Amino acid sequence: VNLEVTPVAGLPEVTRGARLGELIAGLVDLQDGDVVVVSQKIVSKAEGRVRRLADVEPTERAAELAAKLGKDPALTQLILDESRSIVRAERGVLITETRAGWVCANAGIDESNVVEGKVTLLPEDADASARAIRDQIVPAGGRRPGVVITDSFGRPWRIGQVDVAIGVAGLAALDDRRGTPDRQGRELAATVIAIADEVAAAADLVRDKTSGDPVALVRGLAHHVRNEDGAGAAELRRSVAEDLFR
Amino acid sequence: VNLEVTPVAGLPEVTRGARLGELIAGLVDLQDGDVVVVSQKIVSKAEGRVRRLADVEPTERAAELAAKLGKDPALTQLILDESRSIVRAERGVLITETRAGWVCANAGIDESNVVEGKVTLLPEDADASARAIRDQIVPAGGRRPGVVITDSFGRPWRIGQVDVAIGVAGLAALDDRRGTPDRQGRELAATVIAIADEVAAAADLVRDKTSGDPVALVRGLAHHVRNEDGAGAAELRRSVAEDLFR
Repeated sequence: VNLEVTPVAGLPEVTRGARLGELIAGLVDLQDGDVVVVSQKIVSKAEGRVRRLADVEPTERAAELAAKLGKDPALTQLILDESRSIVRAERGVLITETRAGWVCANAGIDESNVVEGKVTLLPEDADASARAIRDQIVPAGGRRPGVVITDSFGRPWRIGQVDVAIGVAGLAALDDRRGTPDRQGRELAATVIAIADEVAAAADLVRDKTSGDPVALVRGLAHHVRNEDGAGAAELRRSVAEDLFR
Repeated sequence: VNLEVTPVAGLPEVTRGARLGELIAGLVDLQDGDVVVVSQKIVSKAEGRVRRLADVEPTERAAELAAKLGKDPALTQLILDESRSIVRAERGVLITETRAGWVCANAGIDESNVVEGKVTLLPEDADASARAIRDQIVPAGGRRPGVVITDSFGRPWRIGQVDVAIGVAGLAALDDRRGTPDRQGRELAATVIAIADEVAAAADLVRDKTSGDPVALVRGLAHHVRNEDGAGAAELRRSVAEDLFR
C-alpha cells in the first residue's frame, strides 16, 4: 500500500452556508477509495459556528475562572457553554469535555484565522458535518470518498499538537486487529488502530498553517473506505466510565 | 507540498547486532529530504532488548501488582524495571513513565511478533538508536535522511492506538509556529506541531501489522529534514512539572 497526501488548493474564503462538499468536488479529481480531509475551521464557518467575543456576556463563574487562568472572560464563557464538564483548569490551561464528548483545550474554540474579535466553535456534530460534506460529493464514477474533519489537539505527556479526527463519514475510524494472528501465529493482544486519527495527522503534514489550505486529499486507503457512512468519529470517543484520566 | 509514504519490503528477520541503517539503505532508493521510519520492534531486536519471561524472577511487589491487575508477574516485573514511576494501575491497565520519560502502557513492552515466551523492551535511548541508524545510511548524493523510530501508544480520552515517535535524528520533531502571523496578520497563539508524531502516524497507515513490514519511507518533508541530528524525540517529552496529568 502506498499513501499519497496532497493539499487541495483554490478553495474560496468559506462563509456561512457554503456547500463544502460541492466546492471540494470541483477542485479535485476524485478516485475510488480517496479520503477527503477537511479542517474544522472551514466546517465551523460554513455552519455559522462563529461568535463575536463582544456579544458574549460572561457570568460570574466564567469571570472568576477567567481571572484565575488569565483568560478572556468572554472566551471563557463560550468554552463553558460548549462544555459538559471541566477536566483541568490550572496554569492558564482550560481543558474540558465538550458537549460532543471530546476532551481538549478551550473546548476546541479557535481564535486563529478568524477576523479580529471572532472565534469559531467546533461543529455541533462533526460526524453529521462529515456525512453532509460526503453527500455533496457525487463522484463521476465509483464510490463517494471517505470524509474526515480534523482539529489540532494537544496531548497529555507529549509536547506539541497533532491533528485528530472529530468527524468521519465513509471511513472505518478504527481498525480492530484483535484476534488477527501475528507472524508467529500468536493472537495480537489488544491492537486497535485509530486509523482516522492517523489520517488526520498525515493530512496535517501537507497543510501549511499560514497559507491556510484547509483541505487535503489522501489516496491509498481504499481498504478502509466504506460505502455506508458508518459510526464516524464517535467510535474514537472513550467513555468517562472507561477512562483512567477523567 | 505532496507527501508520499511507501512501505519498505524485503528486510530480513532482524537479530541482535543487525546494522539496520545499512540494511535499509540497501532496500530503498533514497532521495534528498527523505525520512525513514522504523518501528521500535526491530530496533529493540537489533539492540538485544529482548527478554525471556521465564528468566525473570518477580519480586513480591511485582507479584502483588500483577495479581491486582490480572497480569503476568514476570511481565509486570519487567515493566517495573523499565519504569521510573507508575502513572495508573487500574482495571488491568498499567501505565508508567519509562526510564526514558515516555508515558505509556506496560512501559512499551511488546509481546507481539516475538517468539513465544519472549518480549521486547523499548530501546534504552531511542534518539541514540535513530542517530546510529542514520549514521549507517550513507546516501549516494545529498543529505542523510531523517530517521524516526516509532511505537504504538494508546491515548487518554480516545479509543485506539496511534504510532508516535520515540526516537528521532535529522528531523525537526516540533514545528514551532508561535509568532508566525496568520492570514489576518494576527499572531498564532500557541501552535507547536508535533511533526515527528504526525510522521509516525502517517507511516503506520502503510504498515500492515500482520505482514510485519517494519520500515516505511516518507517523502515530501525535506523542509523538516536537518543536516545535524538535532535534539530528537526528547523535544516531545513533556516534563512532569509541565504536565497536568501526572
